[in-house]
Amino acid sequence: MAKTIQFWFEFASTYSYLSAMRIEAAAQAKDISVEWHPFLLGPIFADQGWRNSPFNIYPAKGRYMWRDMERLCAARGLPFVRPDPFPQNSLNAARLALAIEDHMERAVFVRAIYSAEFGAGQDISDKSVLAACLKAAGLSTSVMNRAQDPDVKKALFEQSARARELGLFGAPSFLAREELFWGDDRLDDAIDYALAI
Amino acid sequence: MAKTIQFWFEFASTYSYLSAMRIEAAAQAKDISVEWHPFLLGPIFADQGWRNSPFNIYPAKGRYMWRDMERLCAARGLPFVRPDPFPQNSLNAARLALAIEDHMERAVFVRAIYSAEFGAGQDISDKSVLAACLKAAGLSTSVMNRAQDPDVKKALFEQSARARELGLFGAPSFLAREELFWGDDRLDDAIDYALAI
Repeated sequence: MAKTIQFWFEFASTYSYLSAMRIEAAAQAKDISVEWHPFLLGPIFADQGWRNSPFNIYPAKGRYMWRDMERLCAARGLPFVRPDPFPQNSLNAARLALAIEDHMERAVFVRAIYSAEFGAGQDISDKSVLAACLKAAGLSTSVMNRAQDPDVKKALFEQSARARELGLFGAPSFLAREELFWGDDRLDDAIDYALAI
Repeated sequence: MAKTIQFWFEFASTYSYLSAMRIEAAAQAKDISVEWHPFLLGPIFADQGWRNSPFNIYPAKGRYMWRDMERLCAARGLPFVRPDPFPQNSLNAARLALAIEDHMERAVFVRAIYSAEFGAGQDISDKSVLAACLKAAGLSTSVMNRAQDPDVKKALFEQSARARELGLFGAPSFLAREELFWGDDRLDDAIDYALAI
């Protein structure tokens, strides 16, 4: 049975962009498969008393994060544009990602969204941007209707509830053999942990 | 002129322990010298509305941090004991570190404190622990009197004010050519940045 890593991401999260762009290659190199798990951080942040991104609530932390992202993206050859507004409303993108059941297809769509958002500064709550991402991923825009089904909405709600149960408090997070790893900085450790049996 | 990296640490900070134990070797390997800068995070956290460690305020984040530290210390062959209480009162340790003017001597003392605190679970507000750390570092316990001088108290106050000016919001932080790096995960990047001219 193939070994697996769970990748939990929030579309509004800057550091999730970094992981989304490299996790598939990093996992494949070690013969591990990736489960792509969109979820919403909003409810979890609200538990902590935050009604906004901590990068907006705490300005010094926010200033640092933007500079850190700039440096990391430059080092990795990734384009980086600060989206406006930040954080983006990620609800529809997350529903769309869940509506795409095949994880390889979902991965391609997720990367298209992150590229639009942080690579090109586009607004991912905009339906025309979402439609363009579906097309870029080789998918039918009929997924947009499917994403409005009550079962998809419920599935996203359940993802976020599951994230809370798993002890997630930020994104990206990785689950390897039920062990939690947080942050793009821990992606390689998480992959090694998934392997180490 | 030798290239330099500034290491800003808070004795109560778990992740600062990780950096304190490896920064000297990592910097020396690239012919860089380290300035050891103790400071207090309390006033900076208070600016953010926190009267306690964020790892206590946000339980999911705290649970994760302890597990993460356990994994990282195991991987690096470092002993790790959770001190009680957490966070420790680091005021006297920070004054002592500042009272030791030579940075090589200070470094040895700083590592002794972190080893007592996170390697052995000792209380670093306890004068007998502080005295033992001075001895372990080959220093006279007369530093304890010196640490109570008004100019040392003032110097620590100024360190924390300077930390705020530099945009520090957590520890460990590194300053390389006026560029800020946060977290033990960025230590190697900071050293490379200090080198890259």
